Amino acid sequence: MHLIAIGGSDAGISAALRARELDPSVDVTVVVADRYPNFSICGIPYYFSGEVQPWQSLAHRTAADLEATGMRLRLDTFATDIDVAGQRLTVRDAQGVESQLPYDELVVGTGALPSAAGIAGLDTLGPDDGVHVLHSMGDTFALDRHLNERNPESAIIIGAGYVGLEMAEALTVRGLKVTQLQRGPEVLSTLDPELGALVHNELDRHGVDVVTKSRVESVSRSGSGLTVRGQHDGVPFERTADLVLAVVGVRPNTYLLERAGARLGAGKAAIVDEQMRTGLPHVFAAGDGVVTHHRLLGVTYLPLGTTAHKQGRVAGENALGGSARFAGSVGTQVVKVFDLVAARTGLREHEATPVGFTPVSTTAVADDHKAYYPGAQPISIRITGDSETGKLLGAQLVGARGTETAKRIDTFATALFHGMAVAGVSDLDLSYTPPLGSPWDAVQIATQRWEREHTKVEVNA
Amino acid sequence: MHLIAIGGSDAGISAALRARELDPSVDVTVVVADRYPNFSICGIPYYFSGEVQPWQSLAHRTAADLEATGMRLRLDTFATDIDVAGQRLTVRDAQGVESQLPYDELVVGTGALPSAAGIAGLDTLGPDDGVHVLHSMGDTFALDRHLNERNPESAIIIGAGYVGLEMAEALTVRGLKVTQLQRGPEVLSTLDPELGALVHNELDRHGVDVVTKSRVESVSRSGSGLTVRGQHDGVPFERTADLVLAVVGVRPNTYLLERAGARLGAGKAAIVDEQMRTGLPHVFAAGDGVVTHHRLLGVTYLPLGTTAHKQGRVAGENALGGSARFAGSVGTQVVKVFDLVAARTGLREHEATPVGFTPVSTTAVADDHKAYYPGAQPISIRITGDSETGKLLGAQLVGARGTETAKRIDTFATALFHGMAVAGVSDLDLSYTPPLGSPWDAVQIATQRWEREHTKVEVNA
Repeated sequence: MHLIAIGGSDAGISAALRARELDPSVDVTVVVADRYPNFSICGIPYYFSGEVQPWQSLAHRTAADLEATGMRLRLDTFATDIDVAGQRLTVRDAQGVESQLPYDELVVGTGALPSAAGIAGLDTLGPDDGVHVLHSMGDTFALDRHLNERNPESAIIIGAGYVGLEMAEALTVRGLKVTQLQRGPEVLSTLDPELGALVHNELDRHGVDVVTKSRVESVSRSGSGLTVRGQHDGVPFERTADLVLAVVGVRPNTYLLERAGARLGAGKAAIVDEQMRTGLPHVFAAGDGVVTHHRLLGVTYLPLGTTAHKQGRVAGENALGGSARFAGSVGTQVVKVFDLVAARTGLREHEATPVGFTPVSTTAVADDHKAYYPGAQPISIRITGDSETGKLLGAQLVGARGTETAKRIDTFATALFHGMAVAGVSDLDLSYTPPLGSPWDAVQIATQRWEREHTKVEVNA
Repeated sequence: MHLIAIGGSDAGISAALRARELDPSVDVTVVVADRYPNFSICGIPYYFSGEVQPWQSLAHRTAADLEATGMRLRLDTFATDIDVAGQRLTVRDAQGVESQLPYDELVVGTGALPSAAGIAGLDTLGPDDGVHVLHSMGDTFALDRHLNERNPESAIIIGAGYVGLEMAEALTVRGLKVTQLQRGPEVLSTLDPELGALVHNELDRHGVDVVTKSRVESVSRSGSGLTVRGQHDGVPFERTADLVLAVVGVRPNTYLLERAGARLGAGKAAIVDEQMRTGLPHVFAAGDGVVTHHRLLGVTYLPLGTTAHKQGRVAGENALGGSARFAGSVGTQVVKVFDLVAARTGLREHEATPVGFTPVSTTAVADDHKAYYPGAQPISIRITGDSETGKLLGAQLVGARGTETAKRIDTFATALFHGMAVAGVSDLDLSYTPPLGSPWDAVQIATQRWEREHTKVEVNA
């Protein structure tokens, strides 16, 4: 039995690890396009902030760790073609030599690629011009060289999502003057603008020049620097800086699977079922290149590292004849921006309405612990629930670092997983001690607020 | 409609608040034995450590706050008798004058009283002798006077449960030399000794003299101090100090309900159903004086503030004709001891076996966040599951303050609420960012360890 996993990131490595864990007699090969298997892409911003050094420590596991589990790594090896009927994978090595690897089962974890979002110049300008993306260790080294060798004083970050915000922090900490351009009305558009505004304030407070409602149209070289042009709230604008970082999202990398005959679905990602089967015999796929089964939305596209880990584990188990199922995402995400933590899970109103809910939302501000104990800080908690059934649909939290905001979102994620009602959250037996909580935890104070505003308890006193 | 709630602590106040919230036309009276309604008894140790000052700030709400909700408070008023048939409550005021209050519905929240655990001398010695308990604001003032006026240099704390540990910290911080006597093999006996030992180390590290396996038999006056005598691991011992604090648990205060004809159940607490009905017409009861419906154990006695709040809220709603149900405890508890946080939820093996489970446990140590990001710290996580069904039965966590241990226990509490399998925890979509978590959260690393040790996944590769 020979299992090949394509991709050295979360999905491919998780599949390979799971297979080796379940059956140490299985022969496992992981084909990795670069020399950096199992690197934490999510950790790259902390390399640039200087908090993580050297770059090697970004590896979840070293190549030696991985090989110690019994898997074989083929680094600097690019998968170019899948012969589904013949169960053979064509690969090209660093010298350009092609070869064919027979497999019994294949797991494709080719991930995603940075999107250019239709911005002119991003296709032609690159690191040598001072224009960067940030999706691989190669991108990391290119940006690192730029920062170290050319000492840029200013940067424009296009995008204010997770990576954009983390890089705004990192480059600010390094002493660059950062301008952050965001297309929508508020940064961190995965949150409602009311909560995104708190993150915006945190960026302001640290000197990041945030420009929302900025639709970037082009990036071009201008003298010694770079000029970004676009429309700001409908009015033309331009900004100049020494460096441009474009972090405007990703698109699934489905080249291999498409050529092999796999179908594409939501977000142009490869279609898989909950067992991570592509429909092509003996070909599984997982991670940022495939559709996401979501417990509230059905099939969507929501690439996240946590999901890739789960999907990869399922694929690795099923490639060995198992019958594991990916239980589904609820879209849980968290980001630290300077001293603030912003998290979400489930749906916001505009996401819930198209799938048949009648969402209503309420924001509460509750202390992370009893106010009488030193250091209590407010957490803003926005609850979205279905006004007809009372079902919990989503939660968004923003609180200072140290308020256990990241793990409070997990209570909501677990509640959503089980389809709880908003009112049901008050039934949960959550922990309390004055330095760390309240008799009704902040999450329950928020759901009770929602209840008061959106439901009527029937009593007949 | 006139609702009377007896008791100024969690259950009584919660019932009164819920009634006023649901129907502002209801007349609500709260009968409070002392002058301190709605004080946070859990916060008292932080008054003694000096972190909370003045004592007035320990009030969850002031009397004025409570009255602003429209409830009437009768302070310094002791309820002495319930005339169930006549729907009248006899009360005695501070001057000793008795009167009768008619009611339509009654909620009894008389709580618990400190236990003496059969220790000779605790019944006869009191604050003037230097012997203290800590269950009310009156006890707090007595201990405060002792500390301020007599400047004791040493204290013996009998008991190493939640309050005992918090007071060991508080008195140590104040400069007293503290000896802590614990009957069982390890401190914090709500955890398995393996994890309790971590708390013990933390006490050692801060100079608390912990003596486990110490069965205290008597407390007596000796010269200017106090002597505690007993058996240490079967050998007689005695210790002397300026002050003794006995915190060895509580017993339900059921005097009123018993006289009125209510039946007693688990732990000699008053029997109530899940709607907080005592069986006596128009008499509800909630809080530390009543039995606890537990989702895994059935009916037990497990007095906790969080439970009292939930039960009181249910009682207040049902007293108005509602049909709320207390959904049941899973026994979630957390305590901070110096710089450590210890939490548990669900069952330990010796608790699970008698109710028909076949429990097995595994301890994992997982970092609170990615090790490459500064400040990662280990959390010890002990998982108990049923070896026959794979059902999650309980979790115990010990981690440094700042590791979000308190809210990580809540993920387990929510999973237990829903009867999840240990393996199901890996399906949960928990939050991840390198400074605050891992792609598989620490809680999932622990459940996966349990799975590897206690289950076999069937694959047929």
